[in-house]
Amino acid sequence: MLKFTENQSLFANAFDDTLVNNAFEVLKEEKSSDRVGYYNLPSTSLEIIEALKVYEKSNELLSTIKNIVVIGIGGSSLGAKAVDSMLKHKKQNGKKLFFFENSDPVNIANTLNCLDKENSLFIVISKSGGTIETISTFKTILHHFDIDLQSDDAKRLIAITDNGSILSQFASEFNIKEFNLPLNVGGRFSVLSSVGIIPLYLAGYDVETLLNGAKEFEQSFFNTESKEILEKACFIYKNREQYRTNVLFAYSNSLEDFSKWFVQLWGESLGKIDKDNNKVGLTPIGLTGAVDQHSFLQLIIEGPEDKTVTFINVEDFENELSIPDMSLKHLEKTDFINGKSFNELINAQCDATMQSIEDTNLPADKITISRLDESNCGALIMYYEILTSLVGAMLNVNTYNQPGVELGKVILDKKFK
Amino acid sequence: MLKFTENQSLFANAFDDTLVNNAFEVLKEEKSSDRVGYYNLPSTSLEIIEALKVYEKSNELLSTIKNIVVIGIGGSSLGAKAVDSMLKHKKQNGKKLFFFENSDPVNIANTLNCLDKENSLFIVISKSGGTIETISTFKTILHHFDIDLQSDDAKRLIAITDNGSILSQFASEFNIKEFNLPLNVGGRFSVLSSVGIIPLYLAGYDVETLLNGAKEFEQSFFNTESKEILEKACFIYKNREQYRTNVLFAYSNSLEDFSKWFVQLWGESLGKIDKDNNKVGLTPIGLTGAVDQHSFLQLIIEGPEDKTVTFINVEDFENELSIPDMSLKHLEKTDFINGKSFNELINAQCDATMQSIEDTNLPADKITISRLDESNCGALIMYYEILTSLVGAMLNVNTYNQPGVELGKVILDKKFK
Repeated sequence: MLKFTENQSLFANAFDDTLVNNAFEVLKEEKSSDRVGYYNLPSTSLEIIEALKVYEKSNELLSTIKNIVVIGIGGSSLGAKAVDSMLKHKKQNGKKLFFFENSDPVNIANTLNCLDKENSLFIVISKSGGTIETISTFKTILHHFDIDLQSDDAKRLIAITDNGSILSQFASEFNIKEFNLPLNVGGRFSVLSSVGIIPLYLAGYDVETLLNGAKEFEQSFFNTESKEILEKACFIYKNREQYRTNVLFAYSNSLEDFSKWFVQLWGESLGKIDKDNNKVGLTPIGLTGAVDQHSFLQLIIEGPEDKTVTFINVEDFENELSIPDMSLKHLEKTDFINGKSFNELINAQCDATMQSIEDTNLPADKITISRLDESNCGALIMYYEILTSLVGAMLNVNTYNQPGVELGKVILDKKFK
Repeated sequence: MLKFTENQSLFANAFDDTLVNNAFEVLKEEKSSDRVGYYNLPSTSLEIIEALKVYEKSNELLSTIKNIVVIGIGGSSLGAKAVDSMLKHKKQNGKKLFFFENSDPVNIANTLNCLDKENSLFIVISKSGGTIETISTFKTILHHFDIDLQSDDAKRLIAITDNGSILSQFASEFNIKEFNLPLNVGGRFSVLSSVGIIPLYLAGYDVETLLNGAKEFEQSFFNTESKEILEKACFIYKNREQYRTNVLFAYSNSLEDFSKWFVQLWGESLGKIDKDNNKVGLTPIGLTGAVDQHSFLQLIIEGPEDKTVTFINVEDFENELSIPDMSLKHLEKTDFINGKSFNELINAQCDATMQSIEDTNLPADKITISRLDESNCGALIMYYEILTSLVGAMLNVNTYNQPGVELGKVILDKKFK
């Protein structure tokens, strides 16, 4: 369950019925017309689970696999990585996810050294099919592990890509197992499609519960039972000139990769030339508590008043680790915390920091996750995707494309050709 | 060696002799009066190396140690972690650095599980001596590993803290080896003091070369041989109303922790109430290339024109990994990169992205590191420390304190007392 705490008066004062109703109608139309596909993934992706169960029976190699290796970048890796980081501390099946994301030679060589062919399944993910980092790394893996596409080795490979893409044609050519993602789902909204569901399922996560958590939030939103998200979108939009930066301050190391996923979603969806030809957008920042109290917090408190701060905390870490009831000579002033659990300490730090920000008159709100589990993870993903779509509708931008990154690709091509 | 590439006309046009001379004089005074201690660390910290050599001979336990475990947060961990991440891919002595930074119970439990008592040396670092996260974790470690302060176990401990602090008094009480840091060196400027030098030395890094790299840059600055840094500080200061956000886009996974160190340095030093009572500061963002081309880049290119971007690239990764000369059916359009090294690819991506940003008329500059080695690492640290001091002097703030984070601590205390 997600619980929302916010400065009611602050958010309610910004509320604008017309603005909110219009944005709500945009999202309803996106969903019902099937122009935007992510809203329906919690239902449509259930089919993938059925297909995976059949596939598992047909591929005997899978029973021995320990390493699920994702080769993908951006929207093809950030989502599965975020979910894995949130949930892996409870996993006990011995299966591990690995990610090849970057074109950094040191990073690629390090990850290759962690793997062996016998225990690994390689999932190459590229929506367009031709992502240069991904295909280059894929070739490197084929070479490094001496993978023969004409042999049973092909069973170690899965391709996830748009139907008909060049990667899809390649997979068909070599009888490599292929999954597609819906054409109306963009990369950064694709975590609940095959792109995220397949690696997470194969690593042993309960993806059905993940999808159900997302579905529950999605339904409560379209049934207009989630007023908080509408108020928040409205506040962010109406105050966008003053509060240009939106900080996500997550009090758990397990949420660090979720923050990276959020940064892509928010930055790439909203940073756009709008329909009136203005350059608009909001700057996302991901912080980790309590550590970043000793870093970025000073700037929030005493720097320019241009940031909103959303805290995320975990009510129950399901971990009993406590500060021992130990008094050390000369360090007695720290004894006030003795016997408390770290669970209590980190949540008290979150509350104290939130209060210090509110005392500075900056807008702050908090999302409390009852536990780090599949259901909450799904809900949190859907919450942020819908929030992004709402603000995008208010900003009057195309939330789902990314034309600004094409120029760099063209320049790169020219450098090598 | 560091090489600087910038848009000469852009930066030169912003140049203001008076402003730059005044800031330069402020830094000269900070250094010569010894009011600010970090400038001299490359010389004064050489003594620590001598002390460590003596200590190594006196503590037979050290010869068996494999895990150097740092317990510290913020300025007490970010610096050593940044250097370790930049350099560890070349390390071959089998010694590893571990960091306990956060009060997250899952994170603490995971790190505890990686360690055993026999192979570990624990370094507790707190400038003030009473940092609540650090002392709480320290007590947890004492309890978990059943460390008896009255026994030889005390030889597994080192304390780094201000002379006379409560942690210093505790260390004296139990004959725990203690090192101090100069009182005129703040946490976020302390990486080249005992705080960074001791864990890095014990992990096997060549800290003398690290210090020399820093010294070389420091001297070239005060000998006014480094015009780039003055131009850049001036540009950032004079355009601070328009360009409120400073992005560091580092094209190497090995620099991710350096970016976190930069974020603390920049955010916490410059986010201040200035002497005229205005809330000032600049927002730091750390990105990793090429992955964040698929994330934050869209916002830079098409979003509000409020960001400067500094690229960092590594000229020679000292890694020969290449994209195999392999043509895969249907994927032939990616063959243009075949046979190239990843070293070439990632640097070409960096150049292409920089050019696409310049084509958008946003200010971009680039710092090229010849190699990821101790000397360059020291130079890069000193470069950013001096840049921060320069901009702080121009902004007329106290670059070296952090009063804004105290309120949260007071609220936390009240919650538990």
